[in-house]
Amino acid sequence: MGSFGLSANNITHGTSFSADLEPKSFSDESKAVIDFIADYYKNIEKYPVQSKVEPGYLSARLTDTAPHSPESLEDILKDVTDCILPGLTHWQSPNFFGYFQANASTAGFLGEMLCSGFNVVGFNWLASPVATELESIVMDWMGKMLKLPSSFLFSGTGGGVLHGSTCESLVCTLAAARDKALEKLGGGFDNITKLVVYASDQTHFALQKSAKLIGIPPANFRPLRTSFSTEFSLSPDTVRAAIEDDIKSGYVPLYLCATVGTTGAGAVDPIEELGKISNEYKLWLHIDAAYAVELADSISLNPHKWFLTNMDCGCLWVKHPRFLVDSLSTKSDIMRNRSPASNTSTNAAPVIDYKDWQIALSRRFKALKLWTVIRKHGYSGLMYHIRSDVSMAKRFEAMVARDERFEIVVPRKFALVCFRLKPKRESEGSELNRKLVDALNGSGRAFLTQAMLGGVYVIRCSIGTTLTQDRHVDDLWKLIQEKADRLLSLQEPEHASR
Amino acid sequence: MGSFGLSANNITHGTSFSADLEPKSFSDESKAVIDFIADYYKNIEKYPVQSKVEPGYLSARLTDTAPHSPESLEDILKDVTDCILPGLTHWQSPNFFGYFQANASTAGFLGEMLCSGFNVVGFNWLASPVATELESIVMDWMGKMLKLPSSFLFSGTGGGVLHGSTCESLVCTLAAARDKALEKLGGGFDNITKLVVYASDQTHFALQKSAKLIGIPPANFRPLRTSFSTEFSLSPDTVRAAIEDDIKSGYVPLYLCATVGTTGAGAVDPIEELGKISNEYKLWLHIDAAYAVELADSISLNPHKWFLTNMDCGCLWVKHPRFLVDSLSTKSDIMRNRSPASNTSTNAAPVIDYKDWQIALSRRFKALKLWTVIRKHGYSGLMYHIRSDVSMAKRFEAMVARDERFEIVVPRKFALVCFRLKPKRESEGSELNRKLVDALNGSGRAFLTQAMLGGVYVIRCSIGTTLTQDRHVDDLWKLIQEKADRLLSLQEPEHASR
Repeated sequence: MGSFGLSANNITHGTSFSADLEPKSFSDESKAVIDFIADYYKNIEKYPVQSKVEPGYLSARLTDTAPHSPESLEDILKDVTDCILPGLTHWQSPNFFGYFQANASTAGFLGEMLCSGFNVVGFNWLASPVATELESIVMDWMGKMLKLPSSFLFSGTGGGVLHGSTCESLVCTLAAARDKALEKLGGGFDNITKLVVYASDQTHFALQKSAKLIGIPPANFRPLRTSFSTEFSLSPDTVRAAIEDDIKSGYVPLYLCATVGTTGAGAVDPIEELGKISNEYKLWLHIDAAYAVELADSISLNPHKWFLTNMDCGCLWVKHPRFLVDSLSTKSDIMRNRSPASNTSTNAAPVIDYKDWQIALSRRFKALKLWTVIRKHGYSGLMYHIRSDVSMAKRFEAMVARDERFEIVVPRKFALVCFRLKPKRESEGSELNRKLVDALNGSGRAFLTQAMLGGVYVIRCSIGTTLTQDRHVDDLWKLIQEKADRLLSLQEPEHASR
Repeated sequence: MGSFGLSANNITHGTSFSADLEPKSFSDESKAVIDFIADYYKNIEKYPVQSKVEPGYLSARLTDTAPHSPESLEDILKDVTDCILPGLTHWQSPNFFGYFQANASTAGFLGEMLCSGFNVVGFNWLASPVATELESIVMDWMGKMLKLPSSFLFSGTGGGVLHGSTCESLVCTLAAARDKALEKLGGGFDNITKLVVYASDQTHFALQKSAKLIGIPPANFRPLRTSFSTEFSLSPDTVRAAIEDDIKSGYVPLYLCATVGTTGAGAVDPIEELGKISNEYKLWLHIDAAYAVELADSISLNPHKWFLTNMDCGCLWVKHPRFLVDSLSTKSDIMRNRSPASNTSTNAAPVIDYKDWQIALSRRFKALKLWTVIRKHGYSGLMYHIRSDVSMAKRFEAMVARDERFEIVVPRKFALVCFRLKPKRESEGSELNRKLVDALNGSGRAFLTQAMLGGVYVIRCSIGTTLTQDRHVDDLWKLIQEKADRLLSLQEPEHASR
């Protein structure tokens, strides 16, 4: 802090800090921003979905040092309009079909405001008891909605925690599995180079990154091959063979990650069979998303994707919270819990210290957001949202299937449709479809992303922003046909000139 | 997702999703929540600072399953009042003097709203170019305000990233240092058990946790002893001796963490001397907070503590971004950047993919929040805020020093005062001061935390919530004297009865 100026000399009375968080100005300025955001949603279809700026555009528009004196909200919002909006790729646009959605909702926004307004740091129970208690209740609510077995619920023998992302859940469960395995093997961390992590080659790269992060040698990561024959899901035989091979070579199988709805193709790994293999070889089984999970050790799912919860909000459930806490807990006098009323240390009492369930010490009161979302939509509303997205994806899939110039590359899973324009020669497939994606995104009227599946370039249409309705899907299909027409008509002369 | 119900049968039309994010209702409901939060700030001094609830209180007040049908905002806010508020420990109360503050501000809240409203996921440049570009600009702004050398700025040869917490910065820099060292040593991860991490015994426990998380054997973590003689700062001689010892035993010194303002006593490690040692032995030097940092490899500082930025917002600067990216980068087709206008892949262009600077893939647009805070307060306003907190801490320190029943245990650092009630017998010091903390926190009129320093139980008074003014500090001191009077008067008879 030192050079930031700790002497009391030369104080410039900028903002009067006694006025900060003052209810009247807080309320007035916040409402001006609300109006600004409401206006943004009103006009959201007018912006090009994918930003059209060039790298480096912003440095030409902003100063290269911070302003010395306070600026007005009006000036700031003017710059948001002039400088920030053009650089956004609009994830909340109803014409955003890229990646997987991050669907915001009014309830998610309201919950986020409450979280930010209270701005408490619930690293342990005492630091704000409700942050811990609401989180454990909401994790059970979510778990019950997903029909998780009671072995993952606090009301059963497990429990759940809100993380910022799946990556964090992977890092924490990998570390827990690692430490449990190392303890069993004896010899401390010397055996870390023997541990092996398994997943399909479709598994989110977050797993590979997380495994390396916790010290698993990159060579001990097994991305097992998948193919069209299983619609890119993991074959149990492949898993078993890899495990047997590793055991013969003196390795120790540690962790298997199975996915329900992979990023590329939406593939669903055969959870039950993988569960049996994991139990047989005593691997930690983590399931990314939640489905038929009895045999798993941990499960993660992101409400900030499909559950109308503004960023960030990820759920992790574990069957044996003890392993997580054993691996991630720390001792500190400052953090010692003390229940004031009973005047007994809660280190003895049955409270959860969520800091021992995650990477960081500090944590936001995200449970308040998820709670607001669940209450404001209800189970029925959330179901309706998901079913309506799936129904729109079916509608889109049917339109694509009816046009013989196109093909559905792998059968639709949930609300993800993987398709492509059929090339005349297979070798031209990638280039043709890359051009189509560029034409679609360059139009500003829609945004889609791509994936390579078994060497085939596919266009992914992921349906699920909060604002997307049937008409947006119909418009998307019209746009795709229009761009395909142009591309195919251009293709002939181009070929002729070669 | 499966059991959540993907068939279109039996759809209950709960919330109409075509109405979600609809500007009018979004605006009306958001403004109702703004009024609620403004009212909370208005009445914040009326609540007991530390929550008085008992463990488990909330499960008696909420249902154990999610509601089936949507509920109204009115009902939800009523439950926030009835169920949530009693369980909060009020971090934004002007009478909160515990831990280190998490000071919210109007500007921080406005920025958080914009971030949450746009709800973009800027994992790479393309996913929302402005999220990346604003972040790199704001990191340079912050770096210049802190007078960091240009070797840590994008305008120089380094760069910065916004993380959620210091822990994340530690994990990422430790992994970068680890992978750089392992590559140099050859032999892959086999040498991981030789790597050693150094810090003082006052260093935040996040470092020990992070080191273990990335696979450094817990036995290779050296929490070097500090004492009253150096005001709990790390002695360079101790560091040098530990490094020499380790080298003789065949270990490889990897990483040294120095702190400016430790959690317990606010101790300031001798950065320049530690920098020289680190350079001599080629250790990665990380500095937690920013001061005299020329010789460091990385620096972290949390605007969500003292810089009026609502949770969460942590800054990390690195001198060689390449090491971070080498350790944390991943390849994925879906994430491939493509600048639409130039139609060239930005893998070749000089854009930053922040996913390779952090643990998770997904990330919020936190730069918008920090940018709003800096602009709305200006450099002068932020300086004023920090200086005014330090000035209040001096005022408090002087009052404590004038009362001979008390002592300042270590000299004040920044805005943290560590003091205690002098015990008659040293063996009674912990119990006496523990009772004082309990009496203070139990009163509901203030909240403080404690630390053990060289075996001495000290009370920490950390000054810096946004709403704290001189009168709150004066009231705190009156309260402390009042509780001390009672405690000391009770003490005699109690001793007599033993």
